This record gives sequence, C-alpha cells and structure tokens, in this order.
Amino acid sequence: MTQKVEILENIFSANDRLASTNRRILDAAGVYSVNLMASPGAGKTSLIELTVEKLREEFRIAVIDGDIATSLDADRAASAGALAVQINTGGECHLDAVMVNEALPRINLNEIDFLIVENVGNLVCPASFQLGTHTNVLVASIPEGDDKPYKYPGMYRGVDALIINKIDLLPYVDFRMDYFKRGVEMLNPGLITFPLSCRNQEGIHDYLDWLRVRIRQHLVIFQNQ
Amino acid sequence: MTQKVEILENIFSANDRLASTNRRILDAAGVYSVNLMASPGAGKTSLIELTVEKLREEFRIAVIDGDIATSLDADRAASAGALAVQINTGGECHLDAVMVNEALPRINLNEIDFLIVENVGNLVCPASFQLGTHTNVLVASIPEGDDKPYKYPGMYRGVDALIINKIDLLPYVDFRMDYFKRGVEMLNPGLITFPLSCRNQEGIHDYLDWLRVRIRQHLVIFQNQ
Repeated sequence: MTQKVEILENIFSANDRLASTNRRILDAAGVYSVNLMASPGAGKTSLIELTVEKLREEFRIAVIDGDIATSLDADRAASAGALAVQINTGGECHLDAVMVNEALPRINLNEIDFLIVENVGNLVCPASFQLGTHTNVLVASIPEGDDKPYKYPGMYRGVDALIINKIDLLPYVDFRMDYFKRGVEMLNPGLITFPLSCRNQEGIHDYLDWLRVRIRQHLVIFQNQ
Repeated sequence: MTQKVEILENIFSANDRLASTNRRILDAAGVYSVNLMASPGAGKTSLIELTVEKLREEFRIAVIDGDIATSLDADRAASAGALAVQINTGGECHLDAVMVNEALPRINLNEIDFLIVENVGNLVCPASFQLGTHTNVLVASIPEGDDKPYKYPGMYRGVDALIINKIDLLPYVDFRMDYFKRGVEMLNPGLITFPLSCRNQEGIHDYLDWLRVRIRQHLVIFQNQ
C-alpha cells in the first residue's frame, strides 16, 4: 500500500515538473493558454469553434486536441480558423504534461497569442494532471444534470472558471440551478461561472470578454519583458 | 516500455481472474447481473430507478452503485425499491472486479434475482475492466452528440446492448441518428439498441422486455442445476 502511494506521488511530481516546463515555454512565447475539460458531449468542441470564430480577428489561435481516437475535433477547430494539432492518446483517459510537451513543437508559438487545449472528455482523470496551461476551464452542461458537482468534486474543485453550456435546454430537462450552484460554491467558493448556449449563442459574450481580458493582459506582460 | 506493458498485462489479468470469481459467485446464487456504463449524466441512475420501479414486482433487485463521492445514486435506487449498496471509489475513475468482489458479501445474493452494477460515469476507463457481470450495457444520450462512437470506440466495441437515452430531446439538438448508428455498426455490428426516454418513458418497454427475458432465462438455468 505504501509502495503504491509512493509510485503515484512520483508520477504526479514528474508530471508537475513537466507542466512547469510547458508553462515556461508558453510564457517565453507570450502565449496565453486554457485547458478545457468536460464530460463527453458537454460541448467543448462547439465552444472552441465559437471562440475561434469570434476571436480570430483579434488573436492568433491554436488548438491542441486530445482524443482517444479520430481527428474529428481538430478538424472542426481547423475549419473554424485555428491552427489545430491532434493528440491521439491511444486509449489514455486524460491528457498529461508529457503529451502537451510533445505537441508544443508542432506549433510555431511565436505566431500564436492564444492556445486552447481540449482535454479528453472525462470528468474524473483530467483533474489529476496539470498540463502547464494558465487556466483550467470546466464545461458543464444542462442535460448532464444538476448533481454533477456533488458526484465529481475533484474536477469542480480544481478549476478557475466554469461554463454551464446548453442553457437553451433548460425548459426541457429537470435541472435545479440553485442546487447545482450550491454544490459548486461548496467546492470552489466564488468560482466565476458563465451560463451560455453554444447553439443560440446566448451568454457567450460574457465568456469571450473574460477571455479577451486575460489574453490581452498576458500579451502586455510578455511585450514588457 | 516493455516493463510498462508487462505491468499493465498483470493488472488486467488479475482483474479478469477476479471477474471470473465474481461471475461464479453470481451464478451459484442464480443472480443475473448487468454492468451499466455511460458518460456522467447520460441517465444511468434514472434508468435504474425506472427499471427497479417497473420490475420490482417480478424480480428481487439489488443495485451496486459506483461513485467517486456521495451516495446520491444509491439513495435513488433504494427509494425506487432496490437493495442498494454504495461503493465510493475514492477518486478511481472506474469500478474493477476487486471493488465488486468486496461489495458482493454486503448483499444476500440468495434473496436476489437481478443485480445492476452502476459504474462510474466515464466513457473511457470502465471499458478496460471486466467486473464479472453477465452483460455490459452502455447508456448513450442524445445531447452528448452523434460523434461519440467515433471518439470513444473502446466503450462502444465492448458492450452487449446500447441504450440511446433522452430521445425526447431530439427536436432541440442537432443529432444525426444515421451518422451515430453507422459509427456503432462499424465498431459493434448488430449491437442491439434501445432508443428511449427515461423522462417520458417512450421506448422503455422494449428494453424492459429484453431484460425480463434474460433474467428469466438465467433463473431457469439456475433452478435446473
């Protein structure tokens, strides 16, 4: 049992060290980055498409897409106008800092302002692996149900912002927003939250404004170095 | 690298051996069992509630609930009328045969006909761990999107039946049923599929009939031993 704990600690610490390296590489190139996590089908890729479409005139955007199989998501990000790099994890249930570290050389970071890393669709495993990105964003979705913060606390605890996607489906499902938000508040007090719909674009502008400010601040710090 | 493969093989083989033990225990008690897998929020627990409500007059039902945290799902299964046992995996992203083996003694199997095991909400990891149950059932859901078979092939490949839940949401989301079914057919030809809605109970009877036949056949085999 002690042995098992030690091995796990070693893995996490190696991952964290490489995550720091990734962060240094991104900072040196002045790239602001987001790690986007969610259940399968919560709408990560739709949100990326919309983000790229809305921000591509202002910022140069790249997307690293983590998937078990296929390049469907990277294709969608590329169609929206981003430079897209696919990581097929070959069965792994999360991205880790090593995979991101291997993907970074495939992007000319000096020609990029903003990097979106789309993690594998999974509400459990990605929470344990820092990638070196600046911000962890979780995409929840209305049809997933209002009990998810209570049942997947690790994921809700570790994120810097929360999207609640598919609010256009609120009239058609049983979702107690108060119950959901109480769970989130318990795990991650004061977490900034963006209820929105990628489908009808309701609420998307608050999220984009929040992103804009962060990308710009990062660019200013980089330009002043 | 070779070392890594060997260790993984050892883990899987130990799990498979214990899965066989679980199956023998269940068969000896004449209990038919299903391993229910899905993304977070696809509707496993709603389906279990409905199944227990509809079948509890005919069969004696127990539910083993695997969750990262809380006993919310076990509470719902118990309210519906099943004997419910909770496994908190403490962060583990899937159930394995060991966890099920440790849960089985908490159920008086001789007083049970049908055992439902609710796996952790995850479309990746549970596919790699047999539990010893008789049938693996995957619950997909309409708002998850039609690309899931292509992106999570491991899960779709290994199951014996597929539920497509939340068909009441079809008018409100973009879901190409043909595209979805082509993906499923490619990975798991001839897979029996039940499109249904736990919310309005449309389509539920085909699934329940299919279950009924299997539970009864199992009881007949057991009684003839």
